[in-house]
Amino acid sequence: MPTNTYQTLVEHTKKLRLLEAVSALLEWDQETYMPKGASHARAEQLELLASICHEQKTHSSYANLLASFIDLETGQLCCSHLSQQQIVSLKLLQRDYKKQAALPNKFVKQFAKLCSQSHGIWAEARQNNNFSLFAPYLEKIIEMSRQKADYIGFKDHPYDALLDHYEPDMTCAQLDPLFQALGQQLHSFVQQIQKQPRADTSILHGTFAEQQQLDFGKLILEKVGYSFDFGRLDLSTHPFSTSFHPTDSRITSRIHKTSVLDCLSAILHEAGHGLYEMGLPQDFYGTPICEAISLGIHESQSRFWETFIGQSQQFWQYFYPLLAQTFPAQLGHVSLDQFYRAMNAVHPSVIRIEADEVTYCLHILVRYEIEKALIKKELSVKDIPDMWNMLMKRFLGVEPASDQEGCLQDIHWSMGGFGYFPTYALGNLYAAQIFATFETLHPDWGQRLAKEQSLNFVTTWLRCEIHEHGHLYSAEELIKRVTGQALSPEPYLRYLKNKYTLS
Amino acid sequence: MPTNTYQTLVEHTKKLRLLEAVSALLEWDQETYMPKGASHARAEQLELLASICHEQKTHSSYANLLASFIDLETGQLCCSHLSQQQIVSLKLLQRDYKKQAALPNKFVKQFAKLCSQSHGIWAEARQNNNFSLFAPYLEKIIEMSRQKADYIGFKDHPYDALLDHYEPDMTCAQLDPLFQALGQQLHSFVQQIQKQPRADTSILHGTFAEQQQLDFGKLILEKVGYSFDFGRLDLSTHPFSTSFHPTDSRITSRIHKTSVLDCLSAILHEAGHGLYEMGLPQDFYGTPICEAISLGIHESQSRFWETFIGQSQQFWQYFYPLLAQTFPAQLGHVSLDQFYRAMNAVHPSVIRIEADEVTYCLHILVRYEIEKALIKKELSVKDIPDMWNMLMKRFLGVEPASDQEGCLQDIHWSMGGFGYFPTYALGNLYAAQIFATFETLHPDWGQRLAKEQSLNFVTTWLRCEIHEHGHLYSAEELIKRVTGQALSPEPYLRYLKNKYTLS
Repeated sequence: MPTNTYQTLVEHTKKLRLLEAVSALLEWDQETYMPKGASHARAEQLELLASICHEQKTHSSYANLLASFIDLETGQLCCSHLSQQQIVSLKLLQRDYKKQAALPNKFVKQFAKLCSQSHGIWAEARQNNNFSLFAPYLEKIIEMSRQKADYIGFKDHPYDALLDHYEPDMTCAQLDPLFQALGQQLHSFVQQIQKQPRADTSILHGTFAEQQQLDFGKLILEKVGYSFDFGRLDLSTHPFSTSFHPTDSRITSRIHKTSVLDCLSAILHEAGHGLYEMGLPQDFYGTPICEAISLGIHESQSRFWETFIGQSQQFWQYFYPLLAQTFPAQLGHVSLDQFYRAMNAVHPSVIRIEADEVTYCLHILVRYEIEKALIKKELSVKDIPDMWNMLMKRFLGVEPASDQEGCLQDIHWSMGGFGYFPTYALGNLYAAQIFATFETLHPDWGQRLAKEQSLNFVTTWLRCEIHEHGHLYSAEELIKRVTGQALSPEPYLRYLKNKYTLS
Repeated sequence: MPTNTYQTLVEHTKKLRLLEAVSALLEWDQETYMPKGASHARAEQLELLASICHEQKTHSSYANLLASFIDLETGQLCCSHLSQQQIVSLKLLQRDYKKQAALPNKFVKQFAKLCSQSHGIWAEARQNNNFSLFAPYLEKIIEMSRQKADYIGFKDHPYDALLDHYEPDMTCAQLDPLFQALGQQLHSFVQQIQKQPRADTSILHGTFAEQQQLDFGKLILEKVGYSFDFGRLDLSTHPFSTSFHPTDSRITSRIHKTSVLDCLSAILHEAGHGLYEMGLPQDFYGTPICEAISLGIHESQSRFWETFIGQSQQFWQYFYPLLAQTFPAQLGHVSLDQFYRAMNAVHPSVIRIEADEVTYCLHILVRYEIEKALIKKELSVKDIPDMWNMLMKRFLGVEPASDQEGCLQDIHWSMGGFGYFPTYALGNLYAAQIFATFETLHPDWGQRLAKEQSLNFVTTWLRCEIHEHGHLYSAEELIKRVTGQALSPEPYLRYLKNKYTLS
């Protein structure tokens, strides 16, 4: 029996969570309301909080406290009489401690500084379509990412060490066959779809007043059970969600005056993230149990709402009449069928964030191949543009006209986020598998929406099945519990084929 | 020559300032955008930051560092070759350290907890007009305030120790004669004014659309040189200003749909505070030099804009035509003269925050007398209501119908803010003295506003004379530098007599 009570440990980890929440609020403010002249002061505030957090995460007093419960090296528990939640928490804390402690403080600071510089350089390089400007910074980021993988350690592939940060336990050995099957089938399916007649997407464009777009977004949020008592909707350049506590989980969207769906689908996407955070078990706040499992699971919640629900016929059977009523001049002459087909038009393009459901994962596979090769020194930075274009051609059959629309389009590398992209594809696969189970259990969900005028029952189902367990299960365990099956690309491919094959 | 460089010291104090800024942002968010369900989580975040701050302020490593420059007990400098800014900084830091260190950590936490509880009780007591509900909490707050005064130490009156927190160096010995002269003259002047015909204030009321009120407020802010690159205007229940850095100084206002002046004068008041913070010397950020001198000087800046400028004929000669144009239905038939007289109607009333320029300070004198007596045990809590009503009758000739409109009206006591109120009166006196100097130097300021369509020259004058010196001078030194005179109630009384005596 340890002399320290488990409560003492929770007090420490809760402090860390509170400090992280404070940082997240500063970042939210930065993207929403902060006066533009304040960016330097804000950077200093964030830097200080990050340094206090890292200090506390690796402090010897914390290490000693944690070590009285679990062996920091092996992860062997040193005490009994623990609940399942306590056992899982200790294992997650040990894992995180080991990783944090493996990274020298100097390295962490240096890497943070490099990324902070690189971010601005990347933005400039993208704006000026000048890859060579970004290349030397990217070079250093890759070098430090390799070094990071070495510090953390890995069994097979150095990329595994990076991937693990975003998707715990996931490895290239698991991803490679998964993504290969996915890539092949998507590729041939896209070719098949392209032979079908193309939907008229011009009907989605017009002029849609800002306030009406937002009001309609709020109506949708209300219907899906996103509570404004515990969240907010604001505007920002790039839509995002952030959470400071299950009782304060905020989302943002943006307004394109000429495209109403851009704002609405961003709202549904971010609401999926927001609802996940709102649904985490707050009695365990301050421990890893009240945290999301992985970015892949997080993304499954956003894609569940954005695409599986939000791009379905059932959803719009209810919402489209209301939307057409809100914008009679723009949509009054457009039928539900026309609207549905335009929204789901499949068209291979060069920009990831504009991709449709069918081609989206192919964009991720391009990045996955390049990232692995870079980390394993099988590709050099100067060859990225050619490799990018070649892979785009191979997977999607299109080639970007410039690096701006090619390998410079994403922010992730400039932030040192190697290993992040695969979680987007995983999110779609998890979501498809969860949605298939949901549909089996609720085949009448469209009718139910029409009758109850609410999707609260969907949110409740997700909450009971996923959110309220927090991080009690690993992604692998959760998917098996919810769907009865291990992760597989089949449900996603089946869903796409059902939806996109014209009968 | 100390082994520690001055820069090391500044690094430490800057961290404290950054943490305080972070807390202030959390509080700003709490009053403006935070979802209502998040209040418990926010309280935990703020509590943690407060505890980290107090730890760092009293940490032995900081004390040792500071002690290598200045004797912590006597304030005697231990090193030479210091700039004026460094000398002043060290003296202010020593002073603050001595005060912080005098208070036992346990006492600080206990007092914070008591105030946090009392705040809710006070709100309930006020709502239900039930002083006896608040009385036991107030009793404890007074007891702990006395204890605080004992810990900090004082020469003549225990109230001096409390006052010093808000208005450094100010004492009852200085305030008593000042406030006595002020009280007597205001009292007889109010009686004199009441014999004059009363202005028709009904013309100020109507229905004023929210957005138009805000837009007009923003126009005023632009004309006074409040920069939205370094600030914001938002809405909150009670208007306030807050600053996280000279580059991020925000204000709020509120909208009364039936009274346009409520919003506009709140905006001008808060802009005065905001401009002061924006104008502080940011090269010295992290040291006391980049801080306001006192609450009295802060209030002088808000009152300068709100009343001396914002309730003047010159100001409205320019702005009233624009206002009447914005609200033609409500103000089209009202002349500038009618508007000006209505805005400056003098009418003794029971609520401080609704008081006019002439009676405002009398409200403060009531509170000053009561606070001093409470702290010196010359008045017991149960006798506050009678004493309040008696003093209101004596100073203002009116009596509140209930404690809700009497001794329960202000939030300050519930927050442990004994010693705060006098700074409101001081703010008016400082402002009058500064304004008299300003008018001597710029007798044509009204014409200049009409010509330049901007009050930037006023802001620039205040910045050069006051803001950009930060805390280099004490309040006493600053007032002498700017106006050539020591603080006196005469400029204020002269201003009021000139303005309110009908010729």
